Amino acid sequence: MSTTHDDGADARHRERMRRKKALVDDKIARATIERGVVVVTTGNGKGKSSSGFGMVARALGHGFKVGVVQFIKGSFATGEEAFFRRFPDDVDYHVMGEGYTWETQDRERDVQAAQAAWTIARSMLENPAIDLVLLDELNIALKYRYIDVGQVTAALAARPPLQHVVITGRAAPPELVDAADTVTEMNVVKHAFAAGIKAQKGIEL
Amino acid sequence: MSTTHDDGADARHRERMRRKKALVDDKIARATIERGVVVVTTGNGKGKSSSGFGMVARALGHGFKVGVVQFIKGSFATGEEAFFRRFPDDVDYHVMGEGYTWETQDRERDVQAAQAAWTIARSMLENPAIDLVLLDELNIALKYRYIDVGQVTAALAARPPLQHVVITGRAAPPELVDAADTVTEMNVVKHAFAAGIKAQKGIEL
Repeated sequence: MSTTHDDGADARHRERMRRKKALVDDKIARATIERGVVVVTTGNGKGKSSSGFGMVARALGHGFKVGVVQFIKGSFATGEEAFFRRFPDDVDYHVMGEGYTWETQDRERDVQAAQAAWTIARSMLENPAIDLVLLDELNIALKYRYIDVGQVTAALAARPPLQHVVITGRAAPPELVDAADTVTEMNVVKHAFAAGIKAQKGIEL
Repeated sequence: MSTTHDDGADARHRERMRRKKALVDDKIARATIERGVVVVTTGNGKGKSSSGFGMVARALGHGFKVGVVQFIKGSFATGEEAFFRRFPDDVDYHVMGEGYTWETQDRERDVQAAQAAWTIARSMLENPAIDLVLLDELNIALKYRYIDVGQVTAALAARPPLQHVVITGRAAPPELVDAADTVTEMNVVKHAFAAGIKAQKGIEL
């Protein structure tokens, strides 16, 4: 590779980066609103709950107080629960009492457990001392209509203005997508499980 | 709503859940391989890095040792860095020395910074004492060819068999997708930034 070629590549790179920086700077200058946001992660791909827990870590790094309610999951211990329960002064952590719904096969019991978890979640959404609320797998409870989506969107609308809320789970209902500020659909390109690999600690659990 | 109607709905729910449980149980029974996995999160949506940091938290909950290298990001402090640096015995945390490439506009400096970060990453991929390695935003460095993807896939193939690796960033190259066990594409449905809302601490930072 000749010096001339390098110089040309460098010049093109600089020009491309200069244009990119101008675009990014302009976007940043126009994004001036400071308020709590509602983030929804949905789709069938791996990463929905883990992105929620990543935002919990990020929030704790800023000295924020965090509330977590895990819906549906509950019959087995997870790494995220073991970890974040180490910070009881900063993280208010709740897990719904029952296991996955296909483990219980009892709709009435599932509805009761989901409603009890939602009561805790709603109290967090009324508490201005909680900076970020993670409602992990809430979308599943909404999909099965264990909880009314109208109650959820009403509680989101009435929450403290600077509070952030992260809601995860496949099949987010359209009403929730409408109410959210940021929505990501996580799609499977490939998954280790399909190749016969067990759910791995630290990754899925 | 009559009791008869409730009973019918309950019976249908039980039958649907029974079939679902059978399917899930069968899949779990067939997924028996225990080994380290390579997870790649890519696409333009929000959640790629945060899902990586959620897996770090999950891994720490299981008592695992973790290595983190953040590529590209480096000119501003992030919540995830402030948080995970609190656990120096369990998390080996490195951030590449330079800011986003469109802030530096100097390809040669970017290449050198990326190569230095890759040297640290590669040593983690050779260390069986590290259970999970997060290479945050590596995909961007691969996209700009600051680092050769062939070197990365070779290091992944030669790593300790039980070590998990999580690689994030938009535009994951096809060679990396081929080498991965689990790949999620995170797509934007909507983003608060487009509505003029600043990047928020605890969410994006």
